[in-house]
Amino acid sequence: MPILFATLRPRKCTIMITLDKAIDIVLSNAKQINKVERVDLWNSIGRVLSANVISDMNMPPFNKTAVDGYACRMSDAKGELEVIETIPAGVVPTKTVTQGQCSKIMTGAMIPKGADCVLMVEDVKEIGFNRIVFTGETPRANICILGEDMKTGEVAIQKGTTLSAQHIAIMAALGCTQPTVSVKPSVAVLVTGDELVEPQQKPTGGQIRNSNGHQLVGQILKANAKPNYIGIVKDTEEATYNAISNALKDSDIVILTGGVSMGDYDYVPSVMKKLGIQILFDSISVQPGKPTKFGIKDGKMIFGLPGNPVSSYMQFEILVKPTIQKLMGGEPNTKSIVRLPLANGYQRKKVERLGLIPILVNANNKVEAVDFHGSAHIFALAKTDGYIMIPLGESEIKEGELVDVRPL
Amino acid sequence: MPILFATLRPRKCTIMITLDKAIDIVLSNAKQINKVERVDLWNSIGRVLSANVISDMNMPPFNKTAVDGYACRMSDAKGELEVIETIPAGVVPTKTVTQGQCSKIMTGAMIPKGADCVLMVEDVKEIGFNRIVFTGETPRANICILGEDMKTGEVAIQKGTTLSAQHIAIMAALGCTQPTVSVKPSVAVLVTGDELVEPQQKPTGGQIRNSNGHQLVGQILKANAKPNYIGIVKDTEEATYNAISNALKDSDIVILTGGVSMGDYDYVPSVMKKLGIQILFDSISVQPGKPTKFGIKDGKMIFGLPGNPVSSYMQFEILVKPTIQKLMGGEPNTKSIVRLPLANGYQRKKVERLGLIPILVNANNKVEAVDFHGSAHIFALAKTDGYIMIPLGESEIKEGELVDVRPL
Repeated sequence: MPILFATLRPRKCTIMITLDKAIDIVLSNAKQINKVERVDLWNSIGRVLSANVISDMNMPPFNKTAVDGYACRMSDAKGELEVIETIPAGVVPTKTVTQGQCSKIMTGAMIPKGADCVLMVEDVKEIGFNRIVFTGETPRANICILGEDMKTGEVAIQKGTTLSAQHIAIMAALGCTQPTVSVKPSVAVLVTGDELVEPQQKPTGGQIRNSNGHQLVGQILKANAKPNYIGIVKDTEEATYNAISNALKDSDIVILTGGVSMGDYDYVPSVMKKLGIQILFDSISVQPGKPTKFGIKDGKMIFGLPGNPVSSYMQFEILVKPTIQKLMGGEPNTKSIVRLPLANGYQRKKVERLGLIPILVNANNKVEAVDFHGSAHIFALAKTDGYIMIPLGESEIKEGELVDVRPL
Repeated sequence: MPILFATLRPRKCTIMITLDKAIDIVLSNAKQINKVERVDLWNSIGRVLSANVISDMNMPPFNKTAVDGYACRMSDAKGELEVIETIPAGVVPTKTVTQGQCSKIMTGAMIPKGADCVLMVEDVKEIGFNRIVFTGETPRANICILGEDMKTGEVAIQKGTTLSAQHIAIMAALGCTQPTVSVKPSVAVLVTGDELVEPQQKPTGGQIRNSNGHQLVGQILKANAKPNYIGIVKDTEEATYNAISNALKDSDIVILTGGVSMGDYDYVPSVMKKLGIQILFDSISVQPGKPTKFGIKDGKMIFGLPGNPVSSYMQFEILVKPTIQKLMGGEPNTKSIVRLPLANGYQRKKVERLGLIPILVNANNKVEAVDFHGSAHIFALAKTDGYIMIPLGESEIKEGELVDVRPL
């Protein structure tokens, strides 16, 4: 936590802003990357469409029956009908239905010429070889009209849409086998902190393993971006300078995350300044996540996330994930917020920051705050479903109060 | 839709059951595949852990400070203190703190011998070179005790857990760099229907493109299983027999999905019988999704899903996805159901089946039924957030009534 010591170096002024303002600043600096690529249908899930999907045909492509039954003239429906043909789906009818005639037809098949309705098979009785009679009350059309769902040239899926398995069905139906999508933004992960060793190494002395950096890679992958893992950077000004400088060359976004400590040994702010990174804020009035920093340089975006794995996890979800979405030309997803009652009252002592409270939704569909303390953070985080907010100045949310749950 | 014609072939009896019963039958036949593999941390998201993750160390691995400050004896806190050392994180302290002494210490660093508390830097005043005084009210320990979160040998993550980015942090912290996970079940997709052509082909005559099969591949990928796409099978008994027979060799699950029509030209049931597949049900009292079939053979599971893309999509989510999860040794996720009010009243005419109603959650956090008709299904499905149920026999859900939303 960067509660700063009286340090030997002069510290630059802190630009502390609200979380809303931070989100505004970050997103207003996130410009769509105008590089696109084409992907196979199956690999398109989670990608953001960068060109509209246009229908290359009418849907349905012909008048087709919505039911299994007998196609005939509606005016004939009350009399006895002769079956002149059987029309499976996929086959073009060869006969025109005239007065007193019908064609047996299967769901999805093309309506034969002359017919203007399909009598459902349940409402029909066979009364001899190739002869039927309608036993229902009123005949209905049961026909899907050519182009009623989609016409040739119409936009079937708007650019900016994040593709799902359901969109695959639409693209497959319309012959879009290689949708054009935005390239995945490249997101570098740099970890500072001399107390850190990589997971394959056994910590000794005062060391701990780097968990934060790998969690961030997982979050980047889940956000459908491309991680560029730089790893642990030695805690010297020179190493930090070189690492950030190289990361900026290859990546659209650079994430720095501290070790647990960001006290005396934090060279990051001065290095950022030397690199010509314009710091837009370096502190957010939020708990946890206060020491979150953000800067820009030549269209690249640089985030400094706290070393605490919970803060880092949440600030990624709140600030970096929507940024990635915007770089791909998509809209940050805000649809999934749901309002649910709080199971037990929540209190806090300090009220000078907006509070982000990790929660789980219990079996009774109520919201429970997840208890966090010290380094147990990473164990508790795995149990959370989302988070709720408690505004600056407020110390309590009462039992049963409705809270907005944002997914994590 | 398999509303059956009076066909030339005798049809086997229909085994129509409720959706609950169908889920029971399917899941009670889903046995965990006992094949495991090791994956890299970053590739572990969505995989199901098949061996407990055991901690190889105490967490924290030493008594460590939770704050930036000065480590000293609590009994000394009220007097003037001499600073004898500076302890960054990652470094082993070299000096023992005795009476009247303290060591400057950074968050995450090891507590020096002799100290039993850390005075927070905000509560301390420097009163000269290497001399400080505590200005706070009551000193607190601010120490995370060795092993308080996790002890060496303890289970950190239980087998059966579906791994997320948050679990990566835990595994990284504990040195589990190659978690043992269940292999991905192989799921074959066969599509029957002579009216179908693959998406790259332009349909002619009565043809339409195969959208269902590709949507299923997308769903399989999202469920973290391995799709085995067989594709369109010619609508003859022989071709169907050979295709299912081959699919059964390579796959744990075989999904068959019809074209739009499953009328006279449906060889699937007789082929299944010839292959020795034991049909456990072939119809569910649900709307949509009635013609869903399920059978087993030698531990393999065979699903016949309706040709309607909405039915097929939903029955996959309801029946096949939890099956995949169980084959991997995981628990089907039921946590994400939330209860929200219905925006507008919902009515239906036919009440003889359980109704599954695709919905979206609107900006007011209320539930709206998504309107489906004919082949527009695939366009509407992309807009849905989930579905709600209306029980057999009931025709109405009133405006404002709380409904259980299951995500799609």
